[in-house]
Amino acid sequence: MSEETSWLHFTEMQTPNTAVLHKVKRVVYRGRTRFQQVDLVETYDFGLCLILDGKLQSSVMDEWIYHEALVHPAMLTHPHPKRVVIIGGGEGATAREVLKHDAVEEVVMVDLDEEVVNLARRKLRVMHRGAFDNPKLKLLHQDGRKYLEEEEDTFDVAIIDITDPLSGGPSYLLYTKEFYDILAGKLSEDGVMVTQATSTCYSRECFTSIAKTIAATFPIARPYRAWIPSFSSEWGFVLGSKHHDPVKLSARTIAQRLRSRGVRNLKFYTPRLHRYLFSLPKFLEKALRTEGRVIRDGEPVFMPA
Amino acid sequence: MSEETSWLHFTEMQTPNTAVLHKVKRVVYRGRTRFQQVDLVETYDFGLCLILDGKLQSSVMDEWIYHEALVHPAMLTHPHPKRVVIIGGGEGATAREVLKHDAVEEVVMVDLDEEVVNLARRKLRVMHRGAFDNPKLKLLHQDGRKYLEEEEDTFDVAIIDITDPLSGGPSYLLYTKEFYDILAGKLSEDGVMVTQATSTCYSRECFTSIAKTIAATFPIARPYRAWIPSFSSEWGFVLGSKHHDPVKLSARTIAQRLRSRGVRNLKFYTPRLHRYLFSLPKFLEKALRTEGRVIRDGEPVFMPA
Amino acid sequence: MSEETSWLHFTEMQTPNTAVLHKVKRVVYRGRTRFQQVDLVETYDFGLCLILDGKLQSSVMDEWIYHEALVHPAMLTHPHPKRVVIIGGGEGATAREVLKHDAVEEVVMVDLDEEVVNLARRKLRVMHRGAFDNPKLKLLHQDGRKYLEEEEDTFDVAIIDITDPLSGGPSYLLYTKEFYDILAGKLSEDGVMVTQATSTCYSRECFTSIAKTIAATFPIARPYRAWIPSFSSEWGFVLGSKHHDPVKLSARTIAQRLRSRGVRNLKFYTPRLHRYLFSLPKFLEKALRTEGRVIRDGEPVFMPA
Amino acid sequence: MSEETSWLHFTEMQTPNTAVLHKVKRVVYRGRTRFQQVDLVETYDFGLCLILDGKLQSSVMDEWIYHEALVHPAMLTHPHPKRVVIIGGGEGATAREVLKHDAVEEVVMVDLDEEVVNLARRKLRVMHRGAFDNPKLKLLHQDGRKYLEEEEDTFDVAIIDITDPLSGGPSYLLYTKEFYDILAGKLSEDGVMVTQATSTCYSRECFTSIAKTIAATFPIARPYRAWIPSFSSEWGFVLGSKHHDPVKLSARTIAQRLRSRGVRNLKFYTPRLHRYLFSLPKFLEKALRTEGRVIRDGEPVFMPA
Repeated sequence: MSEETSWLHFTEMQTPNTAVLHKVKRVVYRGRTRFQQVDLVETYDFGLCLILDGKLQSSVMDEWIYHEALVHPAMLTHPHPKRVVIIGGGEGATAREVLKHDAVEEVVMVDLDEEVVNLARRKLRVMHRGAFDNPKLKLLHQDGRKYLEEEEDTFDVAIIDITDPLSGGPSYLLYTKEFYDILAGKLSEDGVMVTQATSTCYSRECFTSIAKTIAATFPIARPYRAWIPSFSSEWGFVLGSKHHDPVKLSARTIAQRLRSRGVRNLKFYTPRLHRYLFSLPKFLEKALRTEGRVIRDGEPVFMPA
Repeated sequence: MSEETSWLHFTEMQTPNTAVLHKVKRVVYRGRTRFQQVDLVETYDFGLCLILDGKLQSSVMDEWIYHEALVHPAMLTHPHPKRVVIIGGGEGATAREVLKHDAVEEVVMVDLDEEVVNLARRKLRVMHRGAFDNPKLKLLHQDGRKYLEEEEDTFDVAIIDITDPLSGGPSYLLYTKEFYDILAGKLSEDGVMVTQATSTCYSRECFTSIAKTIAATFPIARPYRAWIPSFSSEWGFVLGSKHHDPVKLSARTIAQRLRSRGVRNLKFYTPRLHRYLFSLPKFLEKALRTEGRVIRDGEPVFMPA
Repeated sequence: MSEETSWLHFTEMQTPNTAVLHKVKRVVYRGRTRFQQVDLVETYDFGLCLILDGKLQSSVMDEWIYHEALVHPAMLTHPHPKRVVIIGGGEGATAREVLKHDAVEEVVMVDLDEEVVNLARRKLRVMHRGAFDNPKLKLLHQDGRKYLEEEEDTFDVAIIDITDPLSGGPSYLLYTKEFYDILAGKLSEDGVMVTQATSTCYSRECFTSIAKTIAATFPIARPYRAWIPSFSSEWGFVLGSKHHDPVKLSARTIAQRLRSRGVRNLKFYTPRLHRYLFSLPKFLEKALRTEGRVIRDGEPVFMPA
Repeated sequence: MSEETSWLHFTEMQTPNTAVLHKVKRVVYRGRTRFQQVDLVETYDFGLCLILDGKLQSSVMDEWIYHEALVHPAMLTHPHPKRVVIIGGGEGATAREVLKHDAVEEVVMVDLDEEVVNLARRKLRVMHRGAFDNPKLKLLHQDGRKYLEEEEDTFDVAIIDITDPLSGGPSYLLYTKEFYDILAGKLSEDGVMVTQATSTCYSRECFTSIAKTIAATFPIARPYRAWIPSFSSEWGFVLGSKHHDPVKLSARTIAQRLRSRGVRNLKFYTPRLHRYLFSLPKFLEKALRTEGRVIRDGEPVFMPA
């Protein structure tokens, strides 16, 4: 900020006592959809950023860390994923990563907020890279939980890419035991699911509770994490699986699956890194054993305010 | 900021050690003209704000304090102002105030930066209120000092409404003895001039030096001030005059002149307030006696950085 | 902030949407008394600052503007003030200004918070300048309103130097009609009172309501203001009087009273400035006519949050 | 920050365009030693923090992540470390971790700044936990590079725990090829060294260059990283080794060494985590291959400003 005497910035509270300020080059869009506040802001350090209800969701500079970490562990845990459902995923970047797997025949993406998706389509090509035009993609705008309750077909992989569970927000009922039970019912026998699971540090109760809740539904539940610079945090994910354990996949098997499915242009994920994502520091292993609780519709969990 | 966890704001350094943050509702425009950086930002507290080179110039909420304080003391000190020149004044609000005086026959407005004026014309009607369309207004885009050097006619009142003297900025040569000498040469016998003179507090050396410099050219030099909330400071002005002393004007004469000239819709200035503007606190009187120096082209004065 | 990459600052919200940041050199004291949070912070621009419940009360750089503006108009409106009561005034600077008037025989200072006063005594000599040791000063620590209810003697001048009316704070019942009625009962026939009256801009409802409330008790009620840089605002005061009108005092009378009372070392107030403190901009005159209401114990007024 | 209207915070620029604000509870110490600015600040989220020249060095909440990640990979790579040298390490927490290995017979800690060490001794017991009183520790206050040049004995493990390479700061000559050559000369045949290597993200040129420079001196050079919340970044480290490769250590060997050396009370490091610290994301592997350069005394590398 050396020579300037004024500037614009976007401030995000990590907690009530810690904030991050991003210097802003340009405000591309500010608006409110039926469901949420939407901002598209170009920052100096992280480029264009999509912000929903005041939380940074994706920055051009590192969205691929988040999206590769979210998608590929689950996709590779399944031996031959053909049908994939994405709940949320408005930027189209989750679909982009899923569609890198040639084996996939159909991707159903169910995002509540059509306006966000349309905005992303127009302004965030750098993120979706045309995924919305892929004929394998079927795009629906409705409540993801309701969709799963009513859908009759099953899926091989489900990817839950939604906003954090905020009180009053559109997502908190997609983090409960009831929801995971519905989801398990729609997954094929080898089915694998994964969800973003908030910060491992600043909302640890959410992270550990999501892990506990998925473990209450799925025989195999594996929390993992990756550092996302623009989130100012190591980010949590939880993978739930009916038969296949991601931790038991060898780097060789992963490399072979990536090759046979034609997956290209990865920037974050590697076969060797795969297992690391699941190797947690001692304090986090302990927190996962001793903290958190099963989340239910009637006892939801919310981000700290 | 109670319930939000993120927001946009515009931060302006008052000094290297004191900053003001304005929460931003909307960024209307960001761009760079040939001469300066231009931002139009809508803040929550001050509404739409014009920002040039990072300094807030005018906010909808209180630009009328600044513009009335700048224009009317000089206009009323002159007994019958017919020809007025404005140097700067891009928003058109200075012209708006001048044109409230029916007696005025021609206003020449010389603003270097055509792009800023065009932006103001389109986006800041709430400020100029159509002044740009007034047939009495002649609008020129060139260097104000050069214009005065070359212009052959004279003016009754000159109003210098330019950005602060920043090193490397477009304005610092419009605060020097050489400039005021040129200006005095273009003023009629009863001529009156006024200039904005930066913060009385945060750039006191500028304020006192401008006063000293005008006193070196004009027989009568009167510094005055008004508090402008969006500037976070009491703001300085200096009036220079060949014969008429603004401090000797009675409230009655002012009221009568306002009436006879048809000046209406004032929100800040009143005949009774007029003299107050020139009544300074003791420490400021002392600073004006003991601080500052005559500014010359070769020894300019700059805002503290 | 040029070359540094980190710093400490004190941030004060002016409103929920505008904040001021002061870079901090040193934190001298942080603590909580029985009544309020107390911070003594040395800032780069304003020097040592006393902060109560998060609101900057006095900075070394400009406390004398506030204290001279608060004390002298009332003291000089009274023709021969002998007994003065100060409610609040913890720094001792209000007492310092009152005691500059040799005519004064006794000053009773009633400040609720003994701990703040003791802290000021030790750490803020630069403010009180020994006023606490003046034998004319009688210092009491109790509720100011209760003191006035129970006190039998009367006073010539009353100076109300308390914190802003915050919901839940210690001061809001010292801004009501009931309080001013009690106060009027303890003032002598020529009695004059004055109170700080919050920001004329950022808490205008408080300012106009205090003026209306004092006008409901005292025959003469005069709002006035002065700009206090460290408050980032023009600050309001209201003077109430039984017989003498401050606005009718001539500069000559004021000069003579200052002289005969031996008042020395003023830095802000002058006889000529006096009347102009009471000369308000048009929009403020209008606000005082059309806004605000009489404040009552049961319908208090609070600072905007 | 919900109900407050003011607060103190410590702001650290991550880059010229991204800053982190920590709300401050208490400022324990501010001062300048012969070598650097020193602050001890208690934040709400991270507790007591040691800040040198404006950079957060250690917070009570997570210093153990940094110190365990710095110390144990190197200590365990060496089969039987008896003599250890620490360059820097003022808080005493690096010594604390080293001394957990019973096999260690002597630790020489060479920290330039005696005042920082004395401050840590008094105020940061929660970090050093008495390490300064351990009879195995020999504490010297002199330039670490000069010490190594003049010392005649050799060491098994060297741990470089110094501030980032700032232009004009005390540390930048401890990141050069010349320094690592000196260091290699003082290490025993099985010798292992490790250095903190700045942010893997915000100062990537430093991180990759340190890795390249260590690889130019040591046969085995292994960059690795861990996320430190209070640093708002994944942090880089580089381990250099003469014979033993940390990546080839099995979890079983590590577990056995930890046991036989009596290492207890780890909160971050585990045998299983060890190898994964060295497993980097693809973009970082690529950066380490393609970016950075050998750092020399005459061509130092500095943190971005």
